[in-house]
This record gives sequence, structure tokens and C-alpha cells, in this order.
Amino acid sequence: MQRPVILITNDDGITSPGIKALVDAVSDLGEVIVVAPDSPQSGMGHAITIGDPLRLDKVDVFDGVASWQCSGTPADCVKLARDKILHRKPDLCISGINHGANHSINVIYSGTMSAAMEAAIESVPSMGVSLLDHRFEADFTIAKQVVHDLAVRMLAGKLPEHILLNVNIPIATAATFKGMKICRQAHAKWAEEFDHRTDPRGKDYYWMTGKFINMDKDPGTDVEALKAGYASVVPIRIDFTDTKMKEWMEREWQF
Amino acid sequence: MQRPVILITNDDGITSPGIKALVDAVSDLGEVIVVAPDSPQSGMGHAITIGDPLRLDKVDVFDGVASWQCSGTPADCVKLARDKILHRKPDLCISGINHGANHSINVIYSGTMSAAMEAAIESVPSMGVSLLDHRFEADFTIAKQVVHDLAVRMLAGKLPEHILLNVNIPIATAATFKGMKICRQAHAKWAEEFDHRTDPRGKDYYWMTGKFINMDKDPGTDVEALKAGYASVVPIRIDFTDTKMKEWMEREWQF
Repeated sequence: MQRPVILITNDDGITSPGIKALVDAVSDLGEVIVVAPDSPQSGMGHAITIGDPLRLDKVDVFDGVASWQCSGTPADCVKLARDKILHRKPDLCISGINHGANHSINVIYSGTMSAAMEAAIESVPSMGVSLLDHRFEADFTIAKQVVHDLAVRMLAGKLPEHILLNVNIPIATAATFKGMKICRQAHAKWAEEFDHRTDPRGKDYYWMTGKFINMDKDPGTDVEALKAGYASVVPIRIDFTDTKMKEWMEREWQF
Repeated sequence: MQRPVILITNDDGITSPGIKALVDAVSDLGEVIVVAPDSPQSGMGHAITIGDPLRLDKVDVFDGVASWQCSGTPADCVKLARDKILHRKPDLCISGINHGANHSINVIYSGTMSAAMEAAIESVPSMGVSLLDHRFEADFTIAKQVVHDLAVRMLAGKLPEHILLNVNIPIATAATFKGMKICRQAHAKWAEEFDHRTDPRGKDYYWMTGKFINMDKDPGTDVEALKAGYASVVPIRIDFTDTKMKEWMEREWQF
């Protein structure tokens, strides 16, 4: 049997420790190909590059792993990898490991998740993986175990057509880690407070800052699982239709 | 009673004809405030600006309408508008009118929709509006009628907590337009074919091009409605949890 092809990307850029940890975590499971942004792309959401040309250069970053860096967004990387490098669908796409949480509402802003989502649109089983530790020296030991476990399941089983997972891992050691938990997305938001400053020419500018607010007090959320020491695993849709709201409109609004 | 506050933004930039048409369409319904990108932001998805400072400058673009241009993304515009200009939630947020379609899977890539989505995260009733005509000289007559009709409904009624609409309008005249239809998102994708070129220094680069593929043959989709001459109205969720997939995982995977 042919070894499965595993496409790896991220949004922190190809030189971040998180993507190195991801390559290490799954290199025993198949042929790993890396196509990742040449610079950090955090907060890029599902941006794609249509008004500028894209660069794609072969690089030597991971020992024995074919790797390319791309001037575009995480979603661009997945599109280019498929069309110009793999010339076929990969068997699995993993994005990360992100330095910092992508639970709850962050799925919308996350470049990590957008790469995984792009693969899912192509019906490639995929996941975005994030560790709740922003630091360069973050410990990816537990995260690597979680990724390996999920990758084995995704490569082995007969899966539904769209399997797209948002995986977040708490800061934990082998002693404190509680395992994985299937969750739903917590109803949460960021309360922005822009930091107003004045440049040397007297002109105003703003830095985005924000406070995370979890408005979801019901059980079963990713935020709750992470607080309790579990890795949260949330399956994500790419059909955004709000069926309940659709029923409400069909009842209340006559066009 | 106080006049409702209507926040308007877009992703084509504050100088595009589409946003002018949108201001015209709803200025009789409340106090209109425009906060829009200072340059085109198409394909920005739900990108936010966290690594760079943001500029926000008052401009004189629309007669008698308070307007600001912002150096950031459509989502940034909504966040800044709320925090630095309105100092409160608007009663309605409308993004557009986009020059070009944002039906089906395009909701994920669309800067137009991301602005509306950002407002919905804040529980502000919102919609993204797109006309299926890329041209500068596109005729927004029908689109303006659709926006006005929906805005009246959204400002009048007792609405569910999250109302977020993806509205697309076909190229039509008063004679050929069939009206509005409540739809679901069509299952579709873009088949990318990158146009490979070589720069004057002999280095490769790529332009993203693509062909839209509608894989959805069942009735009730936005693509189908638009083809038949209707404006499509799709209610959109911001909880991306895939409940069916969650049930599958809970049944098939033991953690």
C-alpha cells in the first residue's frame, strides 16, 4: 500500500517551532509535505491572495522533508500545494501547531483554521491544532501526542465526507493532562479596546487589543474542556447556513 | 423615538460605487455612519489586523453622511467603528454592495461577509450584500430596492438574537427581477488553476485563477435562486460546530 500523503501548513510561518513539532509528530505516519507561509500570518482568517502574485520557493528547513515557503496566506498555501506541488489531494492536512489558542469564536479569525478549512472544502480530512501557549519556548510534548492520536484515527477509518477538526491543547504535563474531549464551539467574543496613540507627526493610530469574553455557561464547550485540562476537539462545518434562522424567516417574513 | 444608527462598510473600499449605492439605499431609514477600508480588500476573509497599527481618518465622500476610512480590513472597520466612533452598538450593520457574487462557498473568502459577521458576533443585526456584476458601471437599482426592503424588516421586527444574512442580487431589470428568496448555501467550491509566470529576473510566480464548481444539485440553494432571477437571502451561523459530525465522532471514536 502507498504511504499516505500528509500536507502540513500553519499560520505562524515555516520557521516557527510549532510547525517543526507538527512535522515530528506525524512523520512516521506517511509522506510529509510542508507548504507554509514565509512570514507570520496570524489573524489572517480565510484571506486569499487575488490582487497580488504568489511566490513559492523550495526550502531546506526540516531534515528529509520536502518543504516550500509561500508568500501568501495559509489558505493560499493549501491551494498552491494541491495544484502545483502534489498534483492530487493529500490524504490528510494538518495546520499548526499554532502558538496560542484558537478555541470558540477564534475559529473565525484563525489563519491556522482557515488552512484546514480550505482542505476540507476539497473534501480532504483536516485539522487545525493550537497550543494554549504563545511563547517561542512552549512545550509541544502533549500537543504532539494528541496530533499523532488524531492523525492515526483520520488515516485509518472510514470517515464522513467532511471531517474538519478544531483541536486546542491546554498547557499541561503528562501528569496533569486529562486527555481529549469532543466539544462544541463556545459562544464567546472579543471585547476590543483599541489602544490609541499618536505618531511623531501628530497623527492618530490604533493598536487592536481585546479581552476574551466567554458568554457560554452551558456544558460541553471547548473553553470548559480546556479549563478542566482536556484537549478540546470541535468538528467544524463549512456549510454556514443557519437552519433555525431560516425556519424563523420562512415563518415570519413573506417575500 | 431615536433614529436608528446604521453602520455601513464594505470590502471594495470607501470610493467604490457599491458603497455609495448602499448609503443611498438606506439613508432615509436612520442615521448612517460609514467606516470603510481606504483600499480594496476583496478576498480578505475574516482577517483582522493585529501585527500592525490601524489608521482611522475622517473623510468627506458622501454628502451629509459622517464617514471614516480605515487602513485595516472590513472586520477591523466594524471593530473600530464600535469602539472609537459609535461608542455603542449600531442598530443595523450593512456591508457592501459588493461588486461581484458572494454566494455559496464564497461566504468563507468574502471580506464583505466578514464585516457583517463581525457585527453579528456583537449581536448586531447585519447583512452582507453583493451584486453579480463586477463592473464599475454596474447598475445597483434592483440591489438598492432589495437592501431597503430587508433593512426595513430588520429595523422593524422583533428579531432572533443573531440575524446575519448573505444577500446576493442577480443582474436584472425591474422587468426581469423575480423578487427575493430565502435559501441555503450551495455546496460548491473553486477549482484553482494557478497561472504560472516568470519574472524578468527568471523567478517563478503565480496568479490565482479559478473555476467555480457547483456540486449541489438539490433544490433550495442560493446558486439556483440566482440563476432563476431571484435575489438569494441565506441566513448565516457564527457557531461553526458540526453537530452531525459531533454525533458521528461520539459514536465512532472513544477517547
